[in-house]
Amino acid sequence: MRLALAQINPTVGDVAGNTAKISAWIGRAHEGGAELVIFPELCVPGYPAEDLYLKPHFLAANVRAVEELAAGMPAGITALVGFAEPAEGGGDHRHAHNSLAVLADGAVQAVYRKNRLPNYAVFDEQRYFIPGTDGGSIDVGDTGVGLTICEDTWAPGPPGQAEADAGASLIANPSGSPYHRGKGQEREEMFGERAREYGSHLAFVNLVGGQDELVFDGQSLLFGPDGAVLARAAQFEEELLFAEVPGDPGTPAELRDPLPDLDEVYGALTLGLHDYVEKNGFGHVGLGISGGIDSALVAMLAVDALGPERVTLVVMPSPHSSDETQEDARQIARNLGTELIEIGIEPMMDGYAAALTGVFEGLTAENIQARIRGNLMMALSNRHGWLVLTTGNKSEMSVGYATLYGDMAGGFAVIKDVPKTLVYELVERRNETAGTDLVPASVIERPPSAELRPDQLDSDSLPDYDVLDRILEAYVEGDKGRDEIVAAQLGPGEIVDEVIRLVDRSEYKRRQAAPGIRITPKAFGRDRRLPITNRFGG
Amino acid sequence: MRLALAQINPTVGDVAGNTAKISAWIGRAHEGGAELVIFPELCVPGYPAEDLYLKPHFLAANVRAVEELAAGMPAGITALVGFAEPAEGGGDHRHAHNSLAVLADGAVQAVYRKNRLPNYAVFDEQRYFIPGTDGGSIDVGDTGVGLTICEDTWAPGPPGQAEADAGASLIANPSGSPYHRGKGQEREEMFGERAREYGSHLAFVNLVGGQDELVFDGQSLLFGPDGAVLARAAQFEEELLFAEVPGDPGTPAELRDPLPDLDEVYGALTLGLHDYVEKNGFGHVGLGISGGIDSALVAMLAVDALGPERVTLVVMPSPHSSDETQEDARQIARNLGTELIEIGIEPMMDGYAAALTGVFEGLTAENIQARIRGNLMMALSNRHGWLVLTTGNKSEMSVGYATLYGDMAGGFAVIKDVPKTLVYELVERRNETAGTDLVPASVIERPPSAELRPDQLDSDSLPDYDVLDRILEAYVEGDKGRDEIVAAQLGPGEIVDEVIRLVDRSEYKRRQAAPGIRITPKAFGRDRRLPITNRFGG
Repeated sequence: MRLALAQINPTVGDVAGNTAKISAWIGRAHEGGAELVIFPELCVPGYPAEDLYLKPHFLAANVRAVEELAAGMPAGITALVGFAEPAEGGGDHRHAHNSLAVLADGAVQAVYRKNRLPNYAVFDEQRYFIPGTDGGSIDVGDTGVGLTICEDTWAPGPPGQAEADAGASLIANPSGSPYHRGKGQEREEMFGERAREYGSHLAFVNLVGGQDELVFDGQSLLFGPDGAVLARAAQFEEELLFAEVPGDPGTPAELRDPLPDLDEVYGALTLGLHDYVEKNGFGHVGLGISGGIDSALVAMLAVDALGPERVTLVVMPSPHSSDETQEDARQIARNLGTELIEIGIEPMMDGYAAALTGVFEGLTAENIQARIRGNLMMALSNRHGWLVLTTGNKSEMSVGYATLYGDMAGGFAVIKDVPKTLVYELVERRNETAGTDLVPASVIERPPSAELRPDQLDSDSLPDYDVLDRILEAYVEGDKGRDEIVAAQLGPGEIVDEVIRLVDRSEYKRRQAAPGIRITPKAFGRDRRLPITNRFGG
Repeated sequence: MRLALAQINPTVGDVAGNTAKISAWIGRAHEGGAELVIFPELCVPGYPAEDLYLKPHFLAANVRAVEELAAGMPAGITALVGFAEPAEGGGDHRHAHNSLAVLADGAVQAVYRKNRLPNYAVFDEQRYFIPGTDGGSIDVGDTGVGLTICEDTWAPGPPGQAEADAGASLIANPSGSPYHRGKGQEREEMFGERAREYGSHLAFVNLVGGQDELVFDGQSLLFGPDGAVLARAAQFEEELLFAEVPGDPGTPAELRDPLPDLDEVYGALTLGLHDYVEKNGFGHVGLGISGGIDSALVAMLAVDALGPERVTLVVMPSPHSSDETQEDARQIARNLGTELIEIGIEPMMDGYAAALTGVFEGLTAENIQARIRGNLMMALSNRHGWLVLTTGNKSEMSVGYATLYGDMAGGFAVIKDVPKTLVYELVERRNETAGTDLVPASVIERPPSAELRPDQLDSDSLPDYDVLDRILEAYVEGDKGRDEIVAAQLGPGEIVDEVIRLVDRSEYKRRQAAPGIRITPKAFGRDRRLPITNRFGG
């Protein structure tokens, strides 16, 4: 049987647009000779559509969409299309299934309902969906095809095993599996094992695209019954991949190698930014550039995601800004080919100092500087309709080394899940792939500084970033306790205590931070959910 | 049997502090002659502790706490204490039960595990807990006591029904049931029906206190087997309520009337603010006061929650501020007895205008004014350690009639779930209970204006608030679609369309808003969860 994996990038809530795209891709699959085309999980409504799944009229629009798709299809092809299906008698606030429509011969032939609903990490599917309790198999020509959705195959057993036992030689697994670093490798090992257990071919068809905090990386896969990868679709791009079942290992094009680690992270960030901008209808982005490494990385990512003509960099020097960092900022703009605006902030610093004289002595000068810059970025945004990008990294967001309404002001926090040590690696790698120092070596070599007072260095306030990032990985991503972290020799006790204290007391800041792209197994936002009012302390 | 309902206010994460309080209240209950004392759901860890429940060392601290409580108890009393219990073999990211420890004779005698885990609205219990599958009954003297936890009794059937059928004459229901307007009435009807079905007494013992967005209102209840209320504890206060089972209707003190509607809402806001301030360790709060109705209400609430000596009001006039509104602001400060600071913002407006000349023509003046005020409030906060209160109401937060990093700058958004029309009612009611116009009549009578340009009125940009609030209730709280709202004649089609458009496109602002107190059945925040990237449009 000739099979097509339709790795598409839908937009949440755009039922009409997604349906039009699915219809067009069914046509392309049919033209390419496919008898079966598999689309990703919940591709009609988009995923995750969160509380849209609670709206009965949204579910009704899903039903109309799959019926229209069926009615408009060419003969001779079967399509598996994910949709949010209204459910009867939920009774407990849920009234939907996470379903797969089997479309053929002008009608919806069958519906499969996801059995296993993930409700951990970024997943809240038990908030929305009533689980199905049965497997489902269809015949496409002579081929028995077992139906599953994403999580259904992430552990042994039914429904996939039961379908295979009943004769399915291909298990279809439409998915919405979000990216984190190394996830592709995890998936290949897990699915390979599952295909061997099933003794069947297994087709994992993933979404691609950015949705708020999440990036779906595509990288759809076809496995043989021996667990070998027979085809591997592109990462971070739409693709219609054809394959034969039963089949031999694919051609080199169908079996392209996964991206190297740093390029994969960079690709996720680029796609996540691109899609946030495009799907929310922004024409242009702006960001403050300091001459430091973080804003340099965000500038690179913005240019790679959108092109230099859609990016403006803004330098906002204060009396504490060094000539060297400002010149580096200008050089980055020249290297990347973007517009550069310069606005000195000293007059406004003087205005606040004058206004606050008599209210209290001395000025909380560091925060005021950052907030003047935030105001200027937002004024440019209001004037020109820009999306403002913030440039804080995960290390800073963890310990609260950022000014609320200052450098945290903006609509999208591109690198908020990228630890500082990884920021350096990504910049160095992008310079390497460019074959030239897009970001000057001086930016990479200079000790990090917020430049909010004379001779300030990050290392005055924070542990060295390699120590900090190790502790943060254990505490934030690993949910380890203080004693475990010290026992693992990740840092001295007093530093571990201080880092934990800073992370906990910064929760209120993070709650008001812009969303950003998840690239680790546990990101701030919808993933790591802690109360602000919290006296546990580690 | 003499029974005590221990309606306590624990703090999330403060296992040691909560344990000490529980121990003291067990002592008080014993001194009062109780044979059984019932504490609320998850009172050892605090509720909801969110992802703290994922930390194994947090669960271990819970186990130590209940063991210590048992060991330190007086003889002759049984205590039911809620705790987060480590679970074996969760296997799917959960490794805890939401449990009730039965403490007596120096040891943990039994453990009951919550069967029904709510996972809707503000509840995420299926993220954390593995459900118990069995009921549990104990004997206290001659009395059979059936064990349940909160949601277990919100629908007919087991475990409560099974326990009653097996002979329990009292069903204990420790709960963490958060407040919304009218919830007390809903609970009394539901529990009354349940007690009749069970044919048993039923004791609902609720948490009291604020936790980030939630307020637990207490109002614990004892029902007879005929569904009649035999005792009703205080709202918004801790209380140790004694009662007899089987028993007669209580004395007037034990059967106090529920608060009138507006006083109830006001009480929830006061407690929610008080506990956010106290549990997060703030000594003082500040807020910008404009002479408008919203900041007037927040000032009243702050003074009632904390006392006037812990509140500073800040007037920040611009050239667009009228003499009348500024004088009203000063009068409110005098009436409430708070400190008042005045800082004119014109010099800073001039500074921004000068700095942006040449960058673009004309200034986005309205937002700059609001952001200067936000910066000043944060400068005062940085200097004095204040918590800054924001003053936006639900109507404004819904349609985005607020400036991000401007009037939205602050740590706690006290009235973000209070529709504008209710803001007026609450101010009028508080004036009435005070017996004097704490807020001058001119503030109530003046047409609402943001005063960001000459002669500006809210009604220039928004529908009348009574129309707006009706539409918002249907769209935001009711999840109704555009056509349903128009069909229900809540507003003309073009206004409904515009309101929906404004609500949808303001999601990015709300995502960066401070948390605030939930008083309706659906609040923004952890309750209503919609994507930012969302093209559904209604």
